[in-house]
Amino acid sequence: MKHRVVVVGAGFAGLQLVQDLDGAGCEITLIDQRNHHLFQPLLYQVATTLLATSEIAWPIRRILRRRRDVTTLLATVTGIDRAAREVVLGDGGRVPFDTLVVATGARHAYFGHDGWEADAPGLKTLEDATTIRRRLLLAFERAELARDPAERAAQLTFAVIGAGPTGVELAGIIAELAHRILPGEFRRIDTRKARILLIEAGPRILPAFIPSLSAYAARALERRGVEVRTGVPVTDVGREGIVLGEQPLPARTVIWAAGVQASPAAGWLGAKADRAGRVIVGDQLALPDDPQIFVLGDTAHVENDGQPVPGVAPAAKQQGKHAARQIRARLQGKPPPGPFRYRHMGNLATIGRNAAVIDFGRFQMKGRLAWWVWGLAHIYFLIGARSRLMVSLSWLWSFLSGQNSARLITQKETLRERP
Amino acid sequence: MKHRVVVVGAGFAGLQLVQDLDGAGCEITLIDQRNHHLFQPLLYQVATTLLATSEIAWPIRRILRRRRDVTTLLATVTGIDRAAREVVLGDGGRVPFDTLVVATGARHAYFGHDGWEADAPGLKTLEDATTIRRRLLLAFERAELARDPAERAAQLTFAVIGAGPTGVELAGIIAELAHRILPGEFRRIDTRKARILLIEAGPRILPAFIPSLSAYAARALERRGVEVRTGVPVTDVGREGIVLGEQPLPARTVIWAAGVQASPAAGWLGAKADRAGRVIVGDQLALPDDPQIFVLGDTAHVENDGQPVPGVAPAAKQQGKHAARQIRARLQGKPPPGPFRYRHMGNLATIGRNAAVIDFGRFQMKGRLAWWVWGLAHIYFLIGARSRLMVSLSWLWSFLSGQNSARLITQKETLRERP
Repeated sequence: MKHRVVVVGAGFAGLQLVQDLDGAGCEITLIDQRNHHLFQPLLYQVATTLLATSEIAWPIRRILRRRRDVTTLLATVTGIDRAAREVVLGDGGRVPFDTLVVATGARHAYFGHDGWEADAPGLKTLEDATTIRRRLLLAFERAELARDPAERAAQLTFAVIGAGPTGVELAGIIAELAHRILPGEFRRIDTRKARILLIEAGPRILPAFIPSLSAYAARALERRGVEVRTGVPVTDVGREGIVLGEQPLPARTVIWAAGVQASPAAGWLGAKADRAGRVIVGDQLALPDDPQIFVLGDTAHVENDGQPVPGVAPAAKQQGKHAARQIRARLQGKPPPGPFRYRHMGNLATIGRNAAVIDFGRFQMKGRLAWWVWGLAHIYFLIGARSRLMVSLSWLWSFLSGQNSARLITQKETLRERP
Repeated sequence: MKHRVVVVGAGFAGLQLVQDLDGAGCEITLIDQRNHHLFQPLLYQVATTLLATSEIAWPIRRILRRRRDVTTLLATVTGIDRAAREVVLGDGGRVPFDTLVVATGARHAYFGHDGWEADAPGLKTLEDATTIRRRLLLAFERAELARDPAERAAQLTFAVIGAGPTGVELAGIIAELAHRILPGEFRRIDTRKARILLIEAGPRILPAFIPSLSAYAARALERRGVEVRTGVPVTDVGREGIVLGEQPLPARTVIWAAGVQASPAAGWLGAKADRAGRVIVGDQLALPDDPQIFVLGDTAHVENDGQPVPGVAPAAKQQGKHAARQIRARLQGKPPPGPFRYRHMGNLATIGRNAAVIDFGRFQMKGRLAWWVWGLAHIYFLIGARSRLMVSLSWLWSFLSGQNSARLITQKETLRERP
């Protein structure tokens, strides 16, 4: 009987592992609760009308169609029976494994304020992106309809909480919407009067970058019309807006880019987790007491030289590769590869048209050239020629015409939601 | 003071009218409950994963951005106060008019069985299209997960009710999904075993076409794996499937393409309507007792030579043109144009790859050439170079690669809905 590998989660880590097990002679079952693999680094561009959903997501089955050794299941996992060596599905089905790989990612975290989520959605899935897109566009529509000036101003105030790359990218592109794309389309409001706030509790934006790039990014954002507020915590979020320190700020559109929490895999496995819920794994990325169970990507807490490996796409892919190498070595009776070593590829963030920052560690880039490097790097990592072509065309179109192509408010109850 | 024209509905009729009033010196307010104009003739391609939503829908504001005389409002209309000459909005706002144009379209109708809608959605909006897309794709996923063979067969049975152009096009493209696009991606089911039924209560499919084209279309559909059932009424629709005459047919995915009902405009106006709810207007497209109120498109019942004008896009556009000409003539104190005359442009329907039927009245086309003519005609009528380019590329891609690009299951509760 073939060795049964069950992979839960078709994100960067899980998909990479499955791809690297091609020809290893396993019987692989890949389980995900969505039918698509998502290119999360560009999700903020769907949320802000630049790209369409289908440009950054691909059916998992389609990616793996030639892999006769892989069965893809669209299913929700509700538990893992370690004693029986089975994954338990939402419909009661069970999938037995010899080796298990858990790579179920993370969700945004509200540091004990889960009630904030309704008014300050985060950005992890395609649905999150269309929700944020709908709220952004509806805010301008409601401002156009508003008869009360205070309500109008609150509708035209956008707050992005958290100034890592996602927060910076969101704030920059919302400013472009308000200042460059929408003016001229409304008759009762001037969208250039919109306030876009980027709020960071820490002392500077982009804390993972060197300070000079943080300072450059803050200046570039401010030139584009973003108010950057550092060193001030958000103490409350509600339907009307947020509270900054002790100062209430009416803002009808709030986006959360401040923290993540791992998926509930630690609970399924009964394994030790860190404060963010990530399962603590050994240097082979497996559970310390169960080498047949790997935990990868944002779900795992891995340390290199005492430092936790960051929750970014390249780290997830490297972990997928490493675990696949492990599994292959075991099946062939060879000695295991050395411990997992994370190779840092650099930090990237765009700020807006012609502006990005890249921190490669040894050297840095900023401005127009960095923006082009950023774009080419992301196109390179997309899956398939079609997506590369379509994303390139969408970007080119936006660059030349000054227009974004996916400015649709979809989903029902558009006007009645959060009145 | 300028003449105030209020247009409710930015479909083909309303948008054409607004465009034709360019330079007429009116103050126009265009109200729609969506932020986009939708190219409905291609909606079925969104529902069946061939096109992305953003390829066939455009923000209304964007289309009219250069028209300083037009204010666009995203709002729901709840009534029309004919005495006060005001349109009443959902938020209590009121928009005064001198001339009113109502072009609010139609929804699908269930002939007194409104309860069927939950299990047999129709196709009129982008949300309808993503709902149908989700159900189609989930049916294959659920079949792959099913352990009971009867359940598997029911998941793999698709019923399209109503065999006008939309029903034919849906059935044809679902057959392509099952027979050409999805095989090879599933491990436990053979998607080619799916049953696709096209059900028509009348004696033949495509009743608006000449009988020989109907017969050709039926043969072409059957060659592609569609079971065509004519002369049999659907007597019940439920969660488990449908009843054909007296024969129950388990089918978990049912799509309604059988009938339409006009929007509630007749009620707002207190006007006479036909059985489908369409407001009966005179040969100038205005209310018989109120020449300042026009009703256009699918909302209106217009007769030419005793025949009702069909509810198709070209008819709606022609009506928008005619009403604009009327309004211009009045403003300039000129005599009104002659009565509205509908010019029939022909009936078109695609069946699938390399097969379509076109009935121009004087002559007919079918097969491969008709398919290309159909495609070119639709690309020609899209709005803007970007959409033409993107739709052309999506079609070309699909034609060459045999793959559809928008196979995404989005929206929440995917697996739990209708268990």
